Amino acid sequence: MRYALGVEYDGSGLFGWQRLGKPGVEAVPTVQQLLEQALSSVANAQVDTVCAGRTDAGVHARCQVAHFDSDAAREPRGWMLGATSRLPQAVCVRWCVPVADGFSARFSARARRYRYSILNRPMRPALGRQYLSWVRQPLDAEAMHRAAQALLGEQDFSAFRTVHCQAAHARRDLQHIRVARDGEYVHVDVQANAFLHHMVRNIVGSLLLVGQGIQPESWMATLLAGRDRTVAGPTAPPGGLVFVGPLYPAECGLPPEVTLPA
Amino acid sequence: MRYALGVEYDGSGLFGWQRLGKPGVEAVPTVQQLLEQALSSVANAQVDTVCAGRTDAGVHARCQVAHFDSDAAREPRGWMLGATSRLPQAVCVRWCVPVADGFSARFSARARRYRYSILNRPMRPALGRQYLSWVRQPLDAEAMHRAAQALLGEQDFSAFRTVHCQAAHARRDLQHIRVARDGEYVHVDVQANAFLHHMVRNIVGSLLLVGQGIQPESWMATLLAGRDRTVAGPTAPPGGLVFVGPLYPAECGLPPEVTLPA
Repeated sequence: MRYALGVEYDGSGLFGWQRLGKPGVEAVPTVQQLLEQALSSVANAQVDTVCAGRTDAGVHARCQVAHFDSDAAREPRGWMLGATSRLPQAVCVRWCVPVADGFSARFSARARRYRYSILNRPMRPALGRQYLSWVRQPLDAEAMHRAAQALLGEQDFSAFRTVHCQAAHARRDLQHIRVARDGEYVHVDVQANAFLHHMVRNIVGSLLLVGQGIQPESWMATLLAGRDRTVAGPTAPPGGLVFVGPLYPAECGLPPEVTLPA
Repeated sequence: MRYALGVEYDGSGLFGWQRLGKPGVEAVPTVQQLLEQALSSVANAQVDTVCAGRTDAGVHARCQVAHFDSDAAREPRGWMLGATSRLPQAVCVRWCVPVADGFSARFSARARRYRYSILNRPMRPALGRQYLSWVRQPLDAEAMHRAAQALLGEQDFSAFRTVHCQAAHARRDLQHIRVARDGEYVHVDVQANAFLHHMVRNIVGSLLLVGQGIQPESWMATLLAGRDRTVAGPTAPPGGLVFVGPLYPAECGLPPEVTLPA
């Protein structure tokens, strides 16, 4: 039996999604490791998970999606409550639904959405600092938004890909990107079919140079065309990034928050 | 010379505003104690502060306002940066402005604003859990809003006052109260000339019983008229509460975020 889970986490004290080290060896807490331990305990058997988007250390998730297989006779609600009760406060299972055997949290996803949040004021954050990146220089969010539109469409994102990225190629379809100010905050919302390793944080790092007037609005297009990571802006810090969640076709039967609009 | 400060804090690990114990004895960290230590270090002399609204342990502040006197020759910017650099990450000084000798953070304030945030869903929060109270039963936010309107105006709030409250009387002018749903969240925004000890959390605790259908909408008016704390709802937990800030007349010369609209 295959199940899909919606998983929420505060990545502040966690070392990202991916299980590290050998099974049974708990070097550092990762979401996958904690979740698989919890599910294995509920199942009374080893459970392995596959997720929609592996997040880095310090990155948060509103609704990560993972799938797993188990023959243990548990109701979806039992998986959700049983796993959550075995997870630290920073992680919870939002929902659990049975899915078709062919469903894959990774390969069935049609899109992924991220939000990057910046506190833009002279003083560092106290309230909500776990979820914010801080930029003290005034940012022109409208210029950032206009510059970002050059990234739309199916393109080669080599300029925004870390050297550690293991993807076979760098072509991704960027479906939506919006930069908007809300008082002291600047939010970057971005959606693509899939993302390269560090792609959102590298895009944000370059947009910040445009927002500060260090680079012109046309720079994003220049960077993209150049495909050279070494000339783009620095990688923005992980704490400001939230994986909002993936999106699946309606026929997968997942909750509305991760289902493509009709 | 008198100065006013805007102070932001994450109350999660703090024991509220008020200095506890004897000077020099650091039993538990309070915002006042941390702030006065930081300001005293900048001034090279003992500095005492008076705030607009003392917050309880675990309660946060977007913009608490405090005033202090000092003859030390420091620019406002120097107080702000110097104090913040001596404060833990959970506390910062948003701004510092010189004020008239007659200004009092406490007595010059015409109003105080609070926001109480509730996560309303079956599963406990992971992301943002420091700033949320959790209610798993579905809440009727519109019913809560209608019920809350009975509290408007100058009234005796004895029904919502803790037995430990030291105020001379229980009459307060409640100027605004709004309960609104935003997806999984329910926010209660409230403004009064001043608040009694635990008043916001006690109002929210009673509104939650209305929102769950345990009490009728008319119950808030009944409680208020009865002036009996023992029959009202329980005190809502502190973590969901943020002191948004006080409001002062324009002639005080404070930043817009704490100044009454013209």
